[in-house]
Order: sequence, then C-alpha cells, then structure tokens
Amino acid sequence: MTRRSSELLFTSIAQVSRLLQRKEISSLELVDAVLLRIEERNPKAHAFITVLGDQARRAAKSADRAMQRSKPRSPLYGIPISLKDNFWTKGIRTTAGSKILAKFVPEEDSDVARKLAATSAIVVGKTNMHEFAYGITGENPHYGSSRNPWDGHRISGGSSGGSAVAVASGMGFASLGTDTGGSVRIPAALCGIVGLKPTYGLVSAAGVVPLSVSFDHVGTLARSVPDACIVFEAIAAPYPRGHARPNWRKLSNRWSHKPRIGWPRNFFFERIEPEVRDAVETAARQFESLGADIREVRLPHVADLIDRATNLVIAEASHYHESQGYYPRFASKYGKDVRGLLAWGHELRAVDYLNSFAAGETILKDFEAAFEHVDAIIAPTSPIVAPRLGEGEIRVAGERETKVRAELLRMTRPSNITGMPAISIPCGFTKQGLPIGTQLIGPRWSEARLLHIAAAYEESTDWHARHPD
Amino acid sequence: MTRRSSELLFTSIAQVSRLLQRKEISSLELVDAVLLRIEERNPKAHAFITVLGDQARRAAKSADRAMQRSKPRSPLYGIPISLKDNFWTKGIRTTAGSKILAKFVPEEDSDVARKLAATSAIVVGKTNMHEFAYGITGENPHYGSSRNPWDGHRISGGSSGGSAVAVASGMGFASLGTDTGGSVRIPAALCGIVGLKPTYGLVSAAGVVPLSVSFDHVGTLARSVPDACIVFEAIAAPYPRGHARPNWRKLSNRWSHKPRIGWPRNFFFERIEPEVRDAVETAARQFESLGADIREVRLPHVADLIDRATNLVIAEASHYHESQGYYPRFASKYGKDVRGLLAWGHELRAVDYLNSFAAGETILKDFEAAFEHVDAIIAPTSPIVAPRLGEGEIRVAGERETKVRAELLRMTRPSNITGMPAISIPCGFTKQGLPIGTQLIGPRWSEARLLHIAAAYEESTDWHARHPD
Repeated sequence: MTRRSSELLFTSIAQVSRLLQRKEISSLELVDAVLLRIEERNPKAHAFITVLGDQARRAAKSADRAMQRSKPRSPLYGIPISLKDNFWTKGIRTTAGSKILAKFVPEEDSDVARKLAATSAIVVGKTNMHEFAYGITGENPHYGSSRNPWDGHRISGGSSGGSAVAVASGMGFASLGTDTGGSVRIPAALCGIVGLKPTYGLVSAAGVVPLSVSFDHVGTLARSVPDACIVFEAIAAPYPRGHARPNWRKLSNRWSHKPRIGWPRNFFFERIEPEVRDAVETAARQFESLGADIREVRLPHVADLIDRATNLVIAEASHYHESQGYYPRFASKYGKDVRGLLAWGHELRAVDYLNSFAAGETILKDFEAAFEHVDAIIAPTSPIVAPRLGEGEIRVAGERETKVRAELLRMTRPSNITGMPAISIPCGFTKQGLPIGTQLIGPRWSEARLLHIAAAYEESTDWHARHPD
Repeated sequence: MTRRSSELLFTSIAQVSRLLQRKEISSLELVDAVLLRIEERNPKAHAFITVLGDQARRAAKSADRAMQRSKPRSPLYGIPISLKDNFWTKGIRTTAGSKILAKFVPEEDSDVARKLAATSAIVVGKTNMHEFAYGITGENPHYGSSRNPWDGHRISGGSSGGSAVAVASGMGFASLGTDTGGSVRIPAALCGIVGLKPTYGLVSAAGVVPLSVSFDHVGTLARSVPDACIVFEAIAAPYPRGHARPNWRKLSNRWSHKPRIGWPRNFFFERIEPEVRDAVETAARQFESLGADIREVRLPHVADLIDRATNLVIAEASHYHESQGYYPRFASKYGKDVRGLLAWGHELRAVDYLNSFAAGETILKDFEAAFEHVDAIIAPTSPIVAPRLGEGEIRVAGERETKVRAELLRMTRPSNITGMPAISIPCGFTKQGLPIGTQLIGPRWSEARLLHIAAAYEESTDWHARHPD
C-alpha cells in the first residue's frame, strides 16, 4: 500500500466524506483500499470473522453511481465500516463468535444494520468477538483471538475486540459493537481508539444476539470523537423532550458553558496501575486548563455492590442460552470460559437475582447524587493496559493476583447497571507503548454534552492521531 | 341480640348510612352491636386476631359528635368495618397472621388505612388470615383457623379468611383483604359473599406486609356488589384517562349496553365439581335472560403455563422473607406449610424465574385476545366448595386426588398474573348448603363495567340475601 492510501485509511470520516463528495476519490477506491488492508492485516489480527469483499464492492459501485445523480445526505455515505458479528445481517452469516451459530444466516437485518444501510455506509465485514459477547478479553477459541494492534502478543480486549482492532488498524472507518459490561469501551481503550456506550435503550438492540437484555447497549467504535458522533447520530432513536441530540458539526474545542467534571473519591481510583492513574490525572488537569471545573464526587456504595448487581447479567445470559436450547444441550460447543459462566448463571437462585435489583438501585442513586453537582465524571476506562494473550491472572499495582477478566470489567460495569452513557477516549501511552483510555460518564441522555466535552479534550491533545504500524 | 339488631347487622351499607344520617341510629350503637356480635361469634369463628373495642367506640362517639355539626360526605361515615391483619395500622399491632410479627406495632398507617380513616369508617378489628397471606385455606397454627360460617367444620378459605367470615357473619359491614393468587375471591366464594380484586396497582399496596409485590392486590369483601363498590371507591387511585371510575349510585339492573360475556372453552370449566358447574351455567343463563350476549372465548395457553407463571410469586415471596431476615433465620417460627413454600422459593433458580415471565406474557395475550370480543369472562371462582378443615387432598369431580391448595387457587391465579380485575359473586348453594361463587373477569381498568354487570345479576337473584345463622 502506498503512503498516500495508508494515510487515507486513517483520515477522519468528515474529511473522507468531503473527498468523496468532491469526487477526489470514489467509494469503490476506498472500499478496495480497506479490503486490501484487511487482506494484509487480518490473517494475523483476527479482526474479522467474515469479510464481505464482493458485496462491499458492489455496494460501493452503486453508491458511486447514485452520487452522480444526487448529493449524499449522510457523512457516512460510501464510507467503509464494519459490524460486530452479533448484529443480524440479512443473508450474511452472523456467528456471534460462536460455533453454535457458525452457520446461522439471519433472514432479517438488525435495526442498526437497517439504519446504517439507510445512510449508504458500506459494510466491509463482520468483526470477531468474544464468544456470544460473554467475555472481556476478545480471546476466541473458534475464530482466533483478535490481536492488539500495538503489540500482537497482547489481547485486543473484548467482547467487541475485532471492531476495535479493525478501526485502530485502518480496516474501516468505524465499527458498531455492543457493551453489556464494558465490551465497547474496554477494547477501545486497550486499542487506543474512542468507544461510546450510549444511554440504555437509545440505540435499538433489536436483532442483536443478546447477552443480557436489560444491560445490552449498542455502541460505536471510531478513531475520533466526531467520527463516533457521526455513527451514533445515524443509529440513535429520537431523544426525550428537553435533551439535546448530539450533532458532530457542533463539536468544537470551545465550551459555551464551563463543564463541571467530577473526580470520584471512591471506587474508580482504587487499585489501578500507576501509569494509568498518572495519565488520567494528566487528562483531568488538561480538562482544567481548558476551563473545566474539577470537583470531587462521592460514590460510596459502588465498590460494595457492583458484584451483586452483576448477578443480573449472569442470570439473564444463562436464561437466554437455555431458552434458545443452546445450553446445556450444546455445552461442549462453547469455549471453556463461556461454558463456565453459563453454568454459574444456571445455578444462580431467583432470590439472589431479586436481591441484585436493590444493589443496582443503590448504585444508580450514587451516580444520580453525584450528577446533581457535576456534568460528567472522569475515570480510568480500565485499571490496567492490555494484558498478554492467555494471561488469566494479573497483579494490579503490585497487589495480590486477581482475575484479568474481573480487573478489565471493574471500571466499566457501573454504567451498564445504571444505563448511563460513557465514552472512552485515548489519554496517553505507557512507556511500553500501550494505549491508555479515560472514561467520561454522564447522566442519562447527556450524550451531546459528553461528546462536546470529550471533543474539546481530543482536539487539545494528539493521542488520537497516533496509529499502530 | 334482638332480632332487630341482628337484621341491622346484615343491612346494606347504603341503607345503614341513611339510618345514620337520619339519626335513627348512632355510629356508637352500630359499633356496639358489631362488637357484641364479635364477642358472641369470634371465639368459635376465629375471624379476628385483634378486636379494637375501646378504640372503635371512641371513634364512633367522635363520628356521632361530628355528624351533629355537618353532613358526612362518604357512605362509609361511621360504618363498622375491618382490615386484614397485614395492613399496617399505626399504633395497632399488625401480625400478618404470623408469630414472627406477633409483637409488631407499625408507626405508620398503610395507604388504604389512611384512606379509610378519611371516610370516618370505624375499624373494629384486624382480621385473621393465612400466615403472611401465603396460603389459600385460612388455616392458621398461631391464631386458630377461621371457620366457615355455613359449616364450622369447614375452612373459610384464605388468605383473607377472617375478613370473609367477619363480613358473612355480620361482624362488620365490609373488610379489606389482599389477593395475590385468589386470597380475596376464594374466601368470598367459600363464605357466600362478594370479593373484588381490582386492576393491579389501582389500589395502593404501600404499607401492606407483602407476599409478592408484583402480584399483590388490595381488594374488598362485602355482602353485596354496591357495598363492595362503596369501599372500593374509597381506596382506589384515579383512573387513567378514558376509563370510567365506578360509582355505586349508578349501579342498577338496567344495562344501557348489552354486555358481551365470554364463556371460556379452555381451562375454566375443566375438572370442576358438577354442582359448581351447574350453578355457574345457571348464572350464565341468568345473564342471558337479563340481555347479555354469551359468547364462547378461547384461552388456549393458560392451562399449560399457569404453574410456570406462578414461580414468580414463589420467588418474590422467598426474596421478601430473606431480605427482611425472617427466613431462614426464624424458620422454626413459621407454620409447616409456609415454611415449605419459602424453602421451595429459596431454591428456585433465576433462569426459571426469568422463564416464568414469558409464561405470564403468553397468558396475558390469551386474555387480551379474548377481550377483543367480550366485555367480561364468566368462570367459577373455585372448582370446589369449602373443604373440611385439615383436608390436604381432595378428589375433584371424582378424579384422582389432588392438593386442596392447588384446586382452590386454580381458577383465580390467572387474574393475578395478568393484573386484570375480577369479582366473585354468590351464585348458589350446594345441596349441603355450602355457598358457590362465580367470577366475572374483565380487562384492566374495567371495574365500572364489571361491577355494573355483577350488580344487575345480583339484583335479579337472592343468593346474596341469605345469611348463615
């Protein structure tokens, strides 16, 4: 690939869209460049389960022809993107990263696939994922583990690992993922890109192979805040009255109001790697220098209750797999980790499930109380950077060994329980060159403000401009 | 007691209210007559756990004085009634029929106790009930089993057994009960009175010791449809737009529209005692002779799914008792039957609980489909009349032995799962002289129509005019 086409693959969606509209490039050329990149990178990266070469090229040609007649309405028009392989796509197999659905070809599109089709974005493939989205590492025994683009011996994070790798490596301009406990934000943070998990229910999850229906969120992975915003706008439902809909054209580094950003005294800065803490503290200072007002907030109950609240996810996941007749019938077809989680949920008692609701309510109240004083909360996305492939346990900040899975989920789970939006943005690199992400968490329906705050930070730094080789 | 005061105790609320307003009788005289009746009957009947003699007399005196100054606004003004002992009453012990709460004195009133107080109805006592409302027979190992007023060797039905016995025997003019699986309608049917379970949520259950919060309904027990309506009006929340609020003054045997009454081909007339079936069929013909249009309706899934849907109740009950620290800590303080049910719910799995929701949804759809064609459905309230005390198993219609508990609940549970209103009204007696009840079930918020239909039937028969000795 020439230097020019490589640069092109990392250009912003807005810029590529302008190039397309000025006819400086065609959608077919873009798609071909992306497909070539996938051909080069995917065998090692394991970012895609299914690449839609011919279909994507046909769609690009058709988009190019249509553009001769009329000006496109969406900035996604003709832009190559990807979908996690748990979004139903009509006539295209949808494995959810599993062996059980290895031959499943949906007869209908998921709601978001339909909405993206309406923008004439070009889907170049279905991305690799943790089996049934039920894991946070992106390691997959059936389709190969997606590899971290900054260090191929490390995990991408998951479950939307393939989506993060694809976007970080220039194999498409954005991707759709799902986030039930952190599955968009974690791989985004570990791969050095932007991951947005919106307010619960704001993006339809109809036609998504579910993990836990009460906590599944459709989210977007992109290389910049405006790119994430463009994709989000295409798939979001209307906002309730009184809440602004985000508009990527209005994101800028100028804040009309000085945002109040909460620095949590509890939970989020406990037991994290020093380099991660330093990077997030530096980010907070950067926000301050941009005019934000940083205030301490308290979230006194999250640490004690988050495990209990997560029982809800475990039970719902097992219920889904049992109601579909997948588990325990085809138990041997699952990877070991997912089978173990399903067995756990299978035995969970109803009284504990009901008890978990109260835990979730208390966590929600903690956040609601904090958001009476601040517009957003800043926190690490993960207490650690990308661990090595196969690493089951880890020492965080030199303390006793804990499970990688638990550590990676620790900072993201609360926003799935509360349904509040959160965005992970790059905020630095370790000395080893691994990306670090910081989260901004907001109250429900506050995506417009959250994206606005994040965009100003992004414009004032150049973390997002770095790309892996 | 003189003949006159005995007749007085069985007079309608509307008529007694008129006597009070005309000063032909005072509230104190009424209360004294009721307290005397309780003194005579309660030692054998076990209708009350707590009798509020002095307090009721004080309240009556105060009501009589106030009536000198201004005309009462409610027909319940000065009328002696009772409350099931699971309604919180400020300063008055509220046992919920249990040993565990034997000394529990609430510091606040339940919402309905407060609403009744606003009418100046006089609460003469807290009625006996199945322990924690968790049983349908009314047998109680701690406070004695409430006895059927038509045959003292038989059960009253439960869990609002004391309320039904009190009302049927002239120990008060109406009573409030709760109905989670049939606990208002079953004792009403077995004791020969009217029991109304309204639409879920229409009467506040705040301050009621819960059995299963998603299915608990506060209902009314009375000797006639207008009496039940008067009490219901006093405690019901406002109706959603487009739904008429019942008005006891407008109940009459004249129907402005010919009601369409559904006769279920499935579930409700399977395996019931011949005398019960005959009585309900006769009632249906009576409705027809009054001008109703009787149509067959289908409820194809109820029979198969009702047991599964009921898991929801079992799990919620165990969750409540565990969250309060009652179970398993004080397991030995429960009666054997309730302890057994709590142990069952304790072990119920979350996946089965979640599965039960789908069962409930399907049952709801069956009823919704039926209510596209009819205004109400007629059915037996119970497939059997009152069994003997202590009888654990029974042969229904000569078939194999089944559990009394399961048989009594069989016809009433669906309306708790759907949240749809249902009223049980007397429709005859067996040759042995035991009362038979028939249910009218309507779509949500249809109480006005349901009461209207029931009142016309009641006026055209004299079943409700019979009283036990």
